[in-house]
Amino acid sequence: MSDAVSAPVYGRVALIGLGLIASSMFWAMKRGGLAGEVTGYARSEATRATARRIGLCDRVCDSAIDAVKDADLVVLCVPVGAMGAVAQEIAPALKAGATVTDVGSVKRHVIEAVTPHLPQDVHFVPAHPLAGTEHSGPEAGFAELYDNRWCLLVPVDGTAPEAVAQLRALWEGMGANVDEMDADHHDLVLAVTSHAPHLIAYTMVGVADDLRRVTDSEVIKYSAAGFRDFTRIAASDPTMWRDVFLTNKDATLEILGRFTEELFALQRAIRTGDGAHLHEYFTRTRAIRRGIIEAGQDTAAPNFGREAPKP
Amino acid sequence: MSDAVSAPVYGRVALIGLGLIASSMFWAMKRGGLAGEVTGYARSEATRATARRIGLCDRVCDSAIDAVKDADLVVLCVPVGAMGAVAQEIAPALKAGATVTDVGSVKRHVIEAVTPHLPQDVHFVPAHPLAGTEHSGPEAGFAELYDNRWCLLVPVDGTAPEAVAQLRALWEGMGANVDEMDADHHDLVLAVTSHAPHLIAYTMVGVADDLRRVTDSEVIKYSAAGFRDFTRIAASDPTMWRDVFLTNKDATLEILGRFTEELFALQRAIRTGDGAHLHEYFTRTRAIRRGIIEAGQDTAAPNFGREAPKP
Repeated sequence: MSDAVSAPVYGRVALIGLGLIASSMFWAMKRGGLAGEVTGYARSEATRATARRIGLCDRVCDSAIDAVKDADLVVLCVPVGAMGAVAQEIAPALKAGATVTDVGSVKRHVIEAVTPHLPQDVHFVPAHPLAGTEHSGPEAGFAELYDNRWCLLVPVDGTAPEAVAQLRALWEGMGANVDEMDADHHDLVLAVTSHAPHLIAYTMVGVADDLRRVTDSEVIKYSAAGFRDFTRIAASDPTMWRDVFLTNKDATLEILGRFTEELFALQRAIRTGDGAHLHEYFTRTRAIRRGIIEAGQDTAAPNFGREAPKP
Repeated sequence: MSDAVSAPVYGRVALIGLGLIASSMFWAMKRGGLAGEVTGYARSEATRATARRIGLCDRVCDSAIDAVKDADLVVLCVPVGAMGAVAQEIAPALKAGATVTDVGSVKRHVIEAVTPHLPQDVHFVPAHPLAGTEHSGPEAGFAELYDNRWCLLVPVDGTAPEAVAQLRALWEGMGANVDEMDADHHDLVLAVTSHAPHLIAYTMVGVADDLRRVTDSEVIKYSAAGFRDFTRIAASDPTMWRDVFLTNKDATLEILGRFTEELFALQRAIRTGDGAHLHEYFTRTRAIRRGIIEAGQDTAAPNFGREAPKP
């Protein structure tokens, strides 16, 4: 993250959608002095009221059209399934030469949904910050969310390099490391590192909730034995994740297919008492954890350094 | 946890096996003044040397027989698959009236493996503290591990109530909340809250490591999107977990069967574009997370309150 701040990266930035990602962008842009003025719009009146109350955005607008007017950068921070409709709505109001970007967790679908609506004189640079928490909404954001996290830019063919470089400077100013990637490869990588794990966590938590022989209260009391880590992921925003699965269908189903195959092999090893296979498998997976810690992507503190629970 | 300490709960305690659980018990007993003297034994000479170096145990013995001599409480802290052999080895040296307990994650198997070896004049009170971290070994322990965590006692028929009460006092003194449970129900509950989630996490991490189209370095760099939570669980001790699956086979396979069934239903919802089903499912799982936080079993801080990673 840049400490020495000179001129803002963009004169005016418009945030469309004011949830965790947008609100964290706002606070991170303020921290870094990266934008002259930041406008914001959310479809829900309650969200706009909250944003005004907590000082989220320099100006909260009552329509997306108002928010994007004269903006140099427009950031679409709505669920992936809503991107196309929002692009269509704001397209007539976009300033010539402006850049439109998004923060969606799926890229091929967003490109296909957004591109047809945008005027020729606007740059579209799809992006995906790999950061978040299990909390959602305008009050969930904080300036540090992107520090040392990756943001993937997925420029489409023919995008002006200056537009990409400017967006990169914004994300780097917000603390992120930036990589560029092809949309299809992005969607496959994220299916592995994010989408499949989320579906699996949702599934396991749903199963626990659904069993009649083990009560919910037992599941909750004894969750510290491993299960509670799944519940954090399975507490993520339902609308966002519904859209992710529906729009990254092929890659998610491919990885889930591989997962199921491997799970069956391990189940068979359990059933047949093949301890050597299990031990070898469990030893191999430790190495990946070490890699993540060495790469600075997670803490080495036991249990994620959770605060000791209060009795 | 008890702050007002009077007499120790046991005069002499022997810890057999000196990994994360035993070393945390030692520090917790010292913190609470719960034991007069604590002896320890580990099969590996290197572990015994480490224990002596860091002051783990008042006395580290070179045989299990030496360690249990005159002990009022003997705690078996070895992998579940080794419990029977250790019980057989120490049985001749146990003091009349002593209590033997264990910390294994599976209870029916441990009861069946240990009970036949123990003399009639010794109490056996199986136990399972639901606490741990992804780290293992004698240096991984810390006094606070059991604070506000659950410890399940699984007394067998005919156990003297005083022996159970005394062990309960020890665990409460170490900070834990204590419940009693039947062995088979314990093994089912833990299959849900611990064993199935661990196997699932191991599987997902193994799949990620195994894919050729997504590199290990991509998996590591972009892990913060969800996957890294799985890698913590999948970094747990391979020997311990091999034994858990092999000895809690039926309950684990039952829960994995339910999990697979549910996963297939969600995969079908993705394939057929049934967004309503997905949204409803993902909304329901949020409630479990809230329950866990309200029960003091996890932190409400975003991302478990992980320390901000250093660039």
